[in-house]
Amino acid sequence: MLYPTPIAKLIDSFSKLPGIGAKTATRLAFYTISMSDEDVNDFAKNLLAAKRELTYCSVCGRLTDDDPCIICTDETRDRTKILVVEDSKDVSAMEKIQEYRGLYHVLQGLISPMNGVGPDDINLKSLIARLMDSEVDEVIIATNATADGEATSMYISRVLKPAGIKVTRLARGLAVGSDIEYADEVTLLRAIENRTEL
Amino acid sequence: MLYPTPIAKLIDSFSKLPGIGAKTATRLAFYTISMSDEDVNDFAKNLLAAKRELTYCSVCGRLTDDDPCIICTDETRDRTKILVVEDSKDVSAMEKIQEYRGLYHVLQGLISPMNGVGPDDINLKSLIARLMDSEVDEVIIATNATADGEATSMYISRVLKPAGIKVTRLARGLAVGSDIEYADEVTLLRAIENRTEL
Repeated sequence: MLYPTPIAKLIDSFSKLPGIGAKTATRLAFYTISMSDEDVNDFAKNLLAAKRELTYCSVCGRLTDDDPCIICTDETRDRTKILVVEDSKDVSAMEKIQEYRGLYHVLQGLISPMNGVGPDDINLKSLIARLMDSEVDEVIIATNATADGEATSMYISRVLKPAGIKVTRLARGLAVGSDIEYADEVTLLRAIENRTEL
Repeated sequence: MLYPTPIAKLIDSFSKLPGIGAKTATRLAFYTISMSDEDVNDFAKNLLAAKRELTYCSVCGRLTDDDPCIICTDETRDRTKILVVEDSKDVSAMEKIQEYRGLYHVLQGLISPMNGVGPDDINLKSLIARLMDSEVDEVIIATNATADGEATSMYISRVLKPAGIKVTRLARGLAVGSDIEYADEVTLLRAIENRTEL
């Protein structure tokens, strides 16, 4: 009896989202009721559309509404480079900086021995298939700088190097704007190892 | 081009919610896509249903799916008491403690001289109308312990007292479990003024 049924159900839906607890879900549900009809209708429509219209690109594995996605079909892109990332959000982060003009490959996960996720559980086989008979001369690994990210990066480089493909990965070092005083030891170690000439 | 259109639209919808910034909205939108079809359909349905089916009770002003609401029509409730709150969430908070068995009146706002909200801008006239020819002998004011809450409480008591209705308000004092050391001065002042005999 605490809340009328329609709002209790909406609170329940909001609670299923990550990082949204019971209190926040209640606040969001009550706020929704005070929103305009148009905004709420759009919200519901967008939820259904996102779920229905999005699919994974059959070439790069990226979340897209066209298959193959607009990056894979873009003729102006440099087809000699593939940048490998964990998920579609990473593609967006990379595109934001407007520096990289090559292709992408989205793994949809990382190899994680601790969690029993092996090379066959992520979108890796299709990367190897893409490299056969292609003009790709460099694979840039851009997985997170975490244990799983490193494990995945190691595995990919060990598989591709014998095939004569150049494998690189993003630089490790001090984040721009950060203090040396607060940098962790491993980061500092990598930063001094990979120092660059001025 | 950063995100496919369907997801960009969904991010936009999530961003309209209070306390949800661009980063959280992106995270929620991507999470939604990984949810089951059923959960997403329910979410959309619940959004529309909450907006469509909920209305304000014509008696107490509470958000409800039945009019008059189940509290106003509940014959087992004590009809001699009305507890006045700011919004429907406060009714739920009060019902949770299962102590109060009287009726409610929801103001849907507070008098706020600073923001130009006067007595006519909130659901107050209908409270006075309810009190005519009714068996109510006590009005308990349970507005927030803020400046606007106090102003509203003062105004209501000044209007109702001359009509011979007993007006009370929630006690002020130390929150249970709190430290005297960290209590603010006004709270401590109220706590000592309203001390109770053991």
